[in-house]
Amino acid sequence: MDYIFSNKISSLQPSAIREILKATSVPGIIPLAAGNPAPDAFPVEEVGKIAREILENRPIDALQYGVSEGYQPLRDTIISWMKTHENIGRDFDNVIIMSGATQVMDLLTKVLCNEGDTVICEEPSFIGSLNTFRSYGCKLVGVPVEADGMDVNALEEALKSNPNTRFIYTIPNFQNPSGATMSLEKRKKVYALAKEYGVVILEDNPYGDLRVAGEGLPTIKSMDDEGIVVYAGSFSKILAPGLRVAYCIAHQQILAKMTVGKQASDVHTPCLNQMIVYEWFKQYDVEAHIKKIQKIYKKKLELMCDCIDRELGDFVEYVRPEGGLFIWCRLPDDVNMLEFVQKAIDKKVAVVPGNAFLVDDSKSTQYIRLNFSTPSDDGIINGIKALGEVAKEYRQS
Amino acid sequence: MDYIFSNKISSLQPSAIREILKATSVPGIIPLAAGNPAPDAFPVEEVGKIAREILENRPIDALQYGVSEGYQPLRDTIISWMKTHENIGRDFDNVIIMSGATQVMDLLTKVLCNEGDTVICEEPSFIGSLNTFRSYGCKLVGVPVEADGMDVNALEEALKSNPNTRFIYTIPNFQNPSGATMSLEKRKKVYALAKEYGVVILEDNPYGDLRVAGEGLPTIKSMDDEGIVVYAGSFSKILAPGLRVAYCIAHQQILAKMTVGKQASDVHTPCLNQMIVYEWFKQYDVEAHIKKIQKIYKKKLELMCDCIDRELGDFVEYVRPEGGLFIWCRLPDDVNMLEFVQKAIDKKVAVVPGNAFLVDDSKSTQYIRLNFSTPSDDGIINGIKALGEVAKEYRQS
Repeated sequence: MDYIFSNKISSLQPSAIREILKATSVPGIIPLAAGNPAPDAFPVEEVGKIAREILENRPIDALQYGVSEGYQPLRDTIISWMKTHENIGRDFDNVIIMSGATQVMDLLTKVLCNEGDTVICEEPSFIGSLNTFRSYGCKLVGVPVEADGMDVNALEEALKSNPNTRFIYTIPNFQNPSGATMSLEKRKKVYALAKEYGVVILEDNPYGDLRVAGEGLPTIKSMDDEGIVVYAGSFSKILAPGLRVAYCIAHQQILAKMTVGKQASDVHTPCLNQMIVYEWFKQYDVEAHIKKIQKIYKKKLELMCDCIDRELGDFVEYVRPEGGLFIWCRLPDDVNMLEFVQKAIDKKVAVVPGNAFLVDDSKSTQYIRLNFSTPSDDGIINGIKALGEVAKEYRQS
Repeated sequence: MDYIFSNKISSLQPSAIREILKATSVPGIIPLAAGNPAPDAFPVEEVGKIAREILENRPIDALQYGVSEGYQPLRDTIISWMKTHENIGRDFDNVIIMSGATQVMDLLTKVLCNEGDTVICEEPSFIGSLNTFRSYGCKLVGVPVEADGMDVNALEEALKSNPNTRFIYTIPNFQNPSGATMSLEKRKKVYALAKEYGVVILEDNPYGDLRVAGEGLPTIKSMDDEGIVVYAGSFSKILAPGLRVAYCIAHQQILAKMTVGKQASDVHTPCLNQMIVYEWFKQYDVEAHIKKIQKIYKKKLELMCDCIDRELGDFVEYVRPEGGLFIWCRLPDDVNMLEFVQKAIDKKVAVVPGNAFLVDDSKSTQYIRLNFSTPSDDGIINGIKALGEVAKEYRQS
């Protein structure tokens, strides 16, 4: 049978990153392409102890159906944590538990966008989210990311030119892939523009707690007096991604629709997983854990940057990020980026070609994305050394 | 701000069942409205032991990101189990792991249907799936369910009248809510019609292993020489729903698109949960466990039917199902069904009004759905006794 697929899905390709990730499961490849948290940042013993207690003392609660909004004690915990931790939450806001933050992108797009509606995003931006928006037939309009976050003049132009814009997607902290952090001034401006043009902001903040240098900045959601910011938070980077537990804080009218969407999508996030996160907050000092993993990431970030400076210092350009998981490197103009990536794979190092993060990924770019959280320290050292050897090939020829 | 929601979501109401479920969380309500598996059917000790072992021996595998298609050892296990258990699987088929079977409905609709396309379903049918189809703006066309499954003449009429039909949705075993099981002859006819009209069949089989009487029948998927049947299987009823692990077996061309959809939806099903299911198959005798829970459900089904015969025998009509979780009762013509349901709630018994399962739920019906797996045995006895008292009010007046 010749299958006929929907318009919205027909054009969508498998995520280039995930395809590359599959290639990197070949033994011996150094994984600078992934975005996995460092395994030594997982509170392994704590999760093991908690899971044991839950399945011994309250197995039926963990194994039975739950409600779509999520496990109430976890919802209460997040509400109060986000209030103290990020000053997020007004009377009109509420929280629902999501099966990973990608589900926030998925359900918000589903409830706000008809096919052909516009989503304005930073460019470059996280390929996973871009594909989610594409999967609903949305038109993507990219706004360039500068060293201090999205170009707000270009944002205003985009809002003017696209009256069917339904939301602005931004990762203000340690943006994926650029590593850029949006300045306070720009955060205020993005909020003001969204308000002026009557569109929602989708603020995706998976890396906010992975700051290793500089001062923290207020989230856009913390400025949200009007109920126009939808905040996507995740436990993937501070606890463990394999649990697939995240959350969405937004105006309750938006959450009511997203909850209906969640009922129709996966009914609810697994109870055991939600209870593990709740007990982790209850039994342990989460702020201390965050400080601990910041040290891990600081060490790895600095190691990779030092290696780049040593091995590739006269070859690539990059801005040292203040946190997150990624370093966004610009190759020299005379280097074919895709060829460079292939040469790296030949030397058993996986990196992500930068065009994967473009609104139109058939365009070319000189950038590659490097990740320092997945590889071991030796992997970082040897991986960057191998890239340095690739660079030498270009300079010798 | 006045939020503008998408057309597909605007018309969708929260699932009536889930709203009723929330009402039933009031202490003291007897839950005949739910569809929860019986808690004593959960292999609590086994899951506890397995989870402990996984988090002790392989914590990083359980807590790190996984691939969208699912944990490979579990996929292999399902392929070989489905081959022996249901004779399902051709060379062109493959399996992907889903976050509950609702995700199969969700992703298949997303990859096959544009807004306005038709989905043909049994009527009545599972409200959760109907809402999933509605959430993509599909037009639902209902085909009446008879005692031996869907009316195949009406199905052919529906296929003729709706050339934009993308798939036929059916629950052949112990259908929710009717309890009906489709005859072998009708299974063959449904398959032949789908083939003739070039549409896909979505075969949803959550209850197939909950047979307590009669002989098992082949799944429609087992007849699938053409790759037109998409099979939704679930561990919610034989293991535990709170883990949210299910699977989809279909032609690999369809699965490739659904995998792209899954990447954009929740990236992957939690690794810990998938590993628990895999180890459960590896370490325990799943067939023996299924036999054990069949005994539990047989006892509860027979208890409820006996209670109905005693307390409501001259009031309701129903066909005793050969398995599943539900009994579909017809009230007398002179009784207002919604009023009856309200009177039941007043007596602290929750049942589901039958119109919830209609394509157009504003239509009236004389049916209510009763569930025997959620309540305790005392709950069944007292719940049906209370419904008998409601019935007496009608007969005395």
